[in-house]
Amino acid sequence: MVEQSKVWTAALVVIGDEILSGRTQDKNVAQVATWLNDQGIRLAEVRVVPDETSRIAHTVNELRAAHDYVFTTGGIGPTHDDITVDAIAAAFGVPVVVHPEARRILEDYYRGRPGGLSDARLRMARVPEGAELIPNPTSGAPGVRMGNVYIMAGVPYIAASMLEALTGKLQGGRPMVSVTVGARAPESDVADLLRETEQAHPGVAIGSYPFFKDGRYGSNFVIRSEDAELARLTGNDLAERLRDAGYEPIEGGL
Amino acid sequence: MVEQSKVWTAALVVIGDEILSGRTQDKNVAQVATWLNDQGIRLAEVRVVPDETSRIAHTVNELRAAHDYVFTTGGIGPTHDDITVDAIAAAFGVPVVVHPEARRILEDYYRGRPGGLSDARLRMARVPEGAELIPNPTSGAPGVRMGNVYIMAGVPYIAASMLEALTGKLQGGRPMVSVTVGARAPESDVADLLRETEQAHPGVAIGSYPFFKDGRYGSNFVIRSEDAELARLTGNDLAERLRDAGYEPIEGGL
Repeated sequence: MVEQSKVWTAALVVIGDEILSGRTQDKNVAQVATWLNDQGIRLAEVRVVPDETSRIAHTVNELRAAHDYVFTTGGIGPTHDDITVDAIAAAFGVPVVVHPEARRILEDYYRGRPGGLSDARLRMARVPEGAELIPNPTSGAPGVRMGNVYIMAGVPYIAASMLEALTGKLQGGRPMVSVTVGARAPESDVADLLRETEQAHPGVAIGSYPFFKDGRYGSNFVIRSEDAELARLTGNDLAERLRDAGYEPIEGGL
Repeated sequence: MVEQSKVWTAALVVIGDEILSGRTQDKNVAQVATWLNDQGIRLAEVRVVPDETSRIAHTVNELRAAHDYVFTTGGIGPTHDDITVDAIAAAFGVPVVVHPEARRILEDYYRGRPGGLSDARLRMARVPEGAELIPNPTSGAPGVRMGNVYIMAGVPYIAASMLEALTGKLQGGRPMVSVTVGARAPESDVADLLRETEQAHPGVAIGSYPFFKDGRYGSNFVIRSEDAELARLTGNDLAERLRDAGYEPIEGGL
């Protein structure tokens, strides 16, 4: 029997005209998703929104009511298009203030560097009133936590270092475990078999991901469950059913 | 003077547990965004949602009321986890039917192939009642247009071929033009200069995208406007201001 426990969920808001214009390929969705899963938190929804204060504020307000956590990436640098802090302050109905500890971090970081702590750089110490800081071991300017909203950098390696700093600090449940089985089968040939396998194992979801590689068709079947043992058993069962149907199952996928 | 004209907008719904789990890196956002811009349509919002009928239906209903066009990617294959057509039929409150032309296309495509047109494959001929087909020159199974909702494959090269088939067929406005100027400057050193340049040219938006490459800091500044001449002039002005500040502007960016 699968133990019923609270499923912790998060939403991610990717802030950036550069993603919506197609100029930049987002890399934060995949890394935030993977990290959240390790914390036992399910990424339930992602929204990509433009650099517009009202759109960001509205989106954050909708999502922070619906999920345990909201993460944002992008728009916390020193330039005029970095409006995320202002938007989230507006969402919470609080003013923007300079955080003394953030100012101290930036003073240390820019001491001796050309230009020092200019007004533009000091923008990165601004937070919604009542917020706490998220350490940024990579580039000085910290992230910000306001209520259940985690405001992070858009540059992927900086976002990664902020996630690293948050590792193990958020309450979550059991990570989703996945087991992958591949086969040199067009997915349409094993559709019935997949459905039957999923139905035979309540508590798992099976996703089917076809591909065309090296001139041949194949599919990966991904079994997901919060119950690691159940996922493993279902993987074995699927492998056996594939073998019975004449396909060699490939553990771990293709 | 910038001519005021209707701005055509679209939203994209990426359907897929595999994106939200971090297993798969999405590639459709960037290609749909770029293609839409060429059609004179602005991608205004992206949502990534799980493989859940009610979540897909709710999201599509919200977005099709707010935008001229909605595109979806993912969940139109032959397996049990392909529920997009059912979800969008639910969103429109219509039944799912087999489209005769889609059935004919699939009959042709699978004639002589092992397994022929099985029940699983015939699933790919199902559409919301009243829908039209989007040609799929790549892999047989067509996309579907229902009202202002364009239902496309999740596999990026198949989605690309459906976009290709739609090229020039959607009403749009003027494409957003972008001009990129790069400099070996930390963005915080030129923040004031950027803001002033944007303010001096109503009708443009300037985005600042910092990077760290080959051991040096740099930034790309992207000027966007529906007015190509205005974007070009603003680019020249920004380059001049950068030069005056002691930075060598790099046309086209770094």
